[in-house]
Amino acid sequence: MRGVYFNGTGAEFRDDLQKPVPSATESLIRILYAGVCNTDREVLKGYRPSFRGVMGHEFVGVVEESSDLSWVGKTVVGELNAGCGHCIYCRTGREKHCLTRRVIGMEKKDGCFAEYMTLETHLLHEVPSTLAPEAALLTEPLAAALQVTKQVHIQPDLPIAVIGDGRLAYQVASVLRLTGANLTVIGKHPEKLAQFESFGRTMTIEQAENLADQALESGEGSYEIVVEACGAPSGLELAAKIVRKQGTIVLKSTYAGKTNVDMSFYAVNEITIKGSRCGPFDPALRLLEQGLVKLPPVEFYELEDYEKAFGSRAFKAGFRIGK
Amino acid sequence: MRGVYFNGTGAEFRDDLQKPVPSATESLIRILYAGVCNTDREVLKGYRPSFRGVMGHEFVGVVEESSDLSWVGKTVVGELNAGCGHCIYCRTGREKHCLTRRVIGMEKKDGCFAEYMTLETHLLHEVPSTLAPEAALLTEPLAAALQVTKQVHIQPDLPIAVIGDGRLAYQVASVLRLTGANLTVIGKHPEKLAQFESFGRTMTIEQAENLADQALESGEGSYEIVVEACGAPSGLELAAKIVRKQGTIVLKSTYAGKTNVDMSFYAVNEITIKGSRCGPFDPALRLLEQGLVKLPPVEFYELEDYEKAFGSRAFKAGFRIGK
Ligand SMILES: [Zn+2]
Ligand SMILES: [Zn+2]
Ligand SMILES: [Zn+2]
Ligand SMILES: [Zn+2]
Repeated sequence: MRGVYFNGTGAEFRDDLQKPVPSATESLIRILYAGVCNTDREVLKGYRPSFRGVMGHEFVGVVEESSDLSWVGKTVVGELNAGCGHCIYCRTGREKHCLTRRVIGMEKKDGCFAEYMTLETHLLHEVPSTLAPEAALLTEPLAAALQVTKQVHIQPDLPIAVIGDGRLAYQVASVLRLTGANLTVIGKHPEKLAQFESFGRTMTIEQAENLADQALESGEGSYEIVVEACGAPSGLELAAKIVRKQGTIVLKSTYAGKTNVDMSFYAVNEITIKGSRCGPFDPALRLLEQGLVKLPPVEFYELEDYEKAFGSRAFKAGFRIGK
Repeated sequence: MRGVYFNGTGAEFRDDLQKPVPSATESLIRILYAGVCNTDREVLKGYRPSFRGVMGHEFVGVVEESSDLSWVGKTVVGELNAGCGHCIYCRTGREKHCLTRRVIGMEKKDGCFAEYMTLETHLLHEVPSTLAPEAALLTEPLAAALQVTKQVHIQPDLPIAVIGDGRLAYQVASVLRLTGANLTVIGKHPEKLAQFESFGRTMTIEQAENLADQALESGEGSYEIVVEACGAPSGLELAAKIVRKQGTIVLKSTYAGKTNVDMSFYAVNEITIKGSRCGPFDPALRLLEQGLVKLPPVEFYELEDYEKAFGSRAFKAGFRIGK
């Protein structure tokens, strides 16, 4: 079997991989498309030091064998995290936080940058026949954006802001605008911000910082909910300046290292900080199917060209693997 | 009029203060008892550099004049923060966060360490006749503890922890145990922790840190909700170790300066951090009246002995002012 393998120091293309055999609770999936995301690039940089195996966690495929025969032949996407089934997190609906979970392409489980992959059957989600498989490839990142609306009640009459102008911010903004809320997107790059113009108001970090002084003094230019999705510690600093007292900051982005934070500011102003990660697949599939979220097309590569895929600056890169 | 006055560098006792005259929206209150709290001690240290005036913000008194005659003769407690009435916070039920608010004993408004004080009438709360006025003096600090149950849904079957063994932690634990939740109190001082024994399980910081390693590995010894009420940055560090993924840390304590925080930890584990400050008076009065929260007695001083009151190590010190 052909695939992109992480050997502990870097990625390599291999054509001698063993086709995986599903366990009694798994399905065997023939991969059609796989998506490359920043987490894969983090794996290359050593984010998961003990991992060795096939990379990749975003896929669309067809079920060839399954512990539940009703899945066979279906086009599917699937969740990343397979829990142990009996720890406190697995028992309380938080399988993705299981302490001993396997994560496809990252932790104790081969991923989807290959012709075949196995996955626990209960993690599968069917792709509706009216949705093109290559569009369904965006289910996982879109689900992460929907985690914001799952965790926080976005009231439609609230002023809200997204900090960031990259892929993550784009997906978050795509979902937030559906609430009808008064959305402002704040980013570094005017040319990237241009993509967000149909979603609401856009402004540069400098503009936002000028308004932020006003927000602290008069409340003008402040937001009830700020989603920090820019991937740098400066995002939280800006969020603290523009969020309302008793408002909420959603932390979507992660970065290495510690940040100097004035925690008393959050206590005194009764601000909520909410960490937010992976999200629900089914609503993502519904939004994609109904055309309510239009994401830029994916730029596809062959598995052999994995270096080009990892280096791509497209909105989304991916692999075209099977048919 | 007699009172304790902050002159910009320290407190002084004065007997030449002018009896205040209520505005058209205020009441004139004859002070019976006033409570000293850490915030007063912070004012002495320069926490409110522009403030000059009568100190104190916790009181029980009798209304002598009022913009609303139905209040005259009633025994009352009152909220600290008088908003402008028209800013975004005043218009959205967040008067205590008004950007130009006056705060008794702290900001643009004389406080209650004196024979008389004026207060906006809408900030008054009646003390039930069955509740002793000196017990009602604990309404304000107890309300701050109730802000936790106002902000966070404490489900009665959840394991929760309070970090801290001082006054703030005591009040928080007094309220949290009423939910029936499985409560653990974690503190530095075994002799102070002894006071919490009837509330639930108690343990020292060292014991908690040993269990914390387990919490990170197996989930045992982790808590859905952790209230950080110990007044030091180390409290948040411990909270991060013992809180469950997707759990909530309530920040009650404040301290000067910035802390080094790994914000990605909160994002990845989807933890909520919730700042929490002043709270609702009416439920505090009900709990006190019904004897559901028993707080240690207040140690009373004369206004002239303000230095002794500020230096007191009692659970709560206060002034006996009028009759
Ligand atoms: Zn991804
Ligand atoms: Zn588990
Ligand atoms: Zn106080
Ligand atoms: Zn106001």
